[in-house]
Amino acid sequence: MREIKVVRQIMEWNEDCHNELHNELNDKKVLMLNVMGSPGGGKTTLITRLIEKLKDKNKIGVIEADLAGIIDAEKMAAMNIPVVQLDTAGACHIEAMSIKNILPEFNLEALDIIFVENIGNLVCPAEFNIGEDLKIAILSIPEGDDKVEKYPLMFAKANALVLTKHDLVQYFKFDVNRVIKNAKALNEDIEIFMVNSETGEGILEVVSYLNKYLK
Amino acid sequence: MREIKVVRQIMEWNEDCHNELHNELNDKKVLMLNVMGSPGGGKTTLITRLIEKLKDKNKIGVIEADLAGIIDAEKMAAMNIPVVQLDTAGACHIEAMSIKNILPEFNLEALDIIFVENIGNLVCPAEFNIGEDLKIAILSIPEGDDKVEKYPLMFAKANALVLTKHDLVQYFKFDVNRVIKNAKALNEDIEIFMVNSETGEGILEVVSYLNKYLK
Repeated sequence: MREIKVVRQIMEWNEDCHNELHNELNDKKVLMLNVMGSPGGGKTTLITRLIEKLKDKNKIGVIEADLAGIIDAEKMAAMNIPVVQLDTAGACHIEAMSIKNILPEFNLEALDIIFVENIGNLVCPAEFNIGEDLKIAILSIPEGDDKVEKYPLMFAKANALVLTKHDLVQYFKFDVNRVIKNAKALNEDIEIFMVNSETGEGILEVVSYLNKYLK
Repeated sequence: MREIKVVRQIMEWNEDCHNELHNELNDKKVLMLNVMGSPGGGKTTLITRLIEKLKDKNKIGVIEADLAGIIDAEKMAAMNIPVVQLDTAGACHIEAMSIKNILPEFNLEALDIIFVENIGNLVCPAEFNIGEDLKIAILSIPEGDDKVEKYPLMFAKANALVLTKHDLVQYFKFDVNRVIKNAKALNEDIEIFMVNSETGEGILEVVSYLNKYLK
């Protein structure tokens, strides 16, 4: 039983830290978005497309979490926005405390939005609130239409679900209605978007959705 | 520091259990394969194709690990082989103890091979030995060619890497040589295969590889 007790304690600490961060970000009028999904689902590409559309009217920062390396952070930095790499040294998710340690790297007074790109993992990141306003789950068409049933926590917790690489729906045996039905059954308020980040299809709908939450 | 101590203890227990299982499976001449990769990378489809080629000459069992549901176990059972569903109730990986609890469900004397389909997760399953002889990592082309750099532990630990959905290499900006170079740099002994499980391309090469390890 010992390890279970420890996990509960971590969860309580995490929730306290999440609430503290959330209040601080509200005071500073910064919208924080926690973007989650499988490795290679298209998180980085989606975030870069959203930033392109949002950056004229909003000051944007990015936190890139990875087990190793700075591949995605370099892509973000190329857009000339503040980026901080969170190196989890192999850990499978990020916690609120990680964000608390990183936030002083940003000038929050000068920011409107922070995108957090979580570790590519459809399981563990869903368990941890990190101070965010919205959880955005990504599911790419090549992953298959059974993923909501197989990884329910992610979709139960997400405020929005973005189906990426949507142009591939015709090449894979992917039943969009199966995903919508199962996601709504877990989470009736979930907002669902279909996007092709390469062509920009569907990006403006996600931008409109995010605009409703700007502080 | 407390939770770090607990994690170490879990790892020690896990390693003891792994060795015990490995010895038992050697005594019974059963080859155990731990198949790992991202959600939707093609683990289930690859395993079914391998079973089709192996089942005439070998008795095969499958352990299907999932956070929820029995979608994949049903696909395996349709092949008329013994299948046990390991429901991790949301946990992100399986441990040796999980396998120890499940093995009595099989008649090991009557089996030659057990495939274990791990949780769809490129991170946590890599940390736990589960009594297996070989770890087989799956990376599907749509996930992108930067995954070895971003999720190094999986590829450092794997005995074999199977690049699935290989027919898509021309549609995605996927540089196979980048993956081979990075995987070999982490793990010079890793064997790399390219497979299209839909058409069967490359399956026989994986079958030949597995045949070398039959007991």
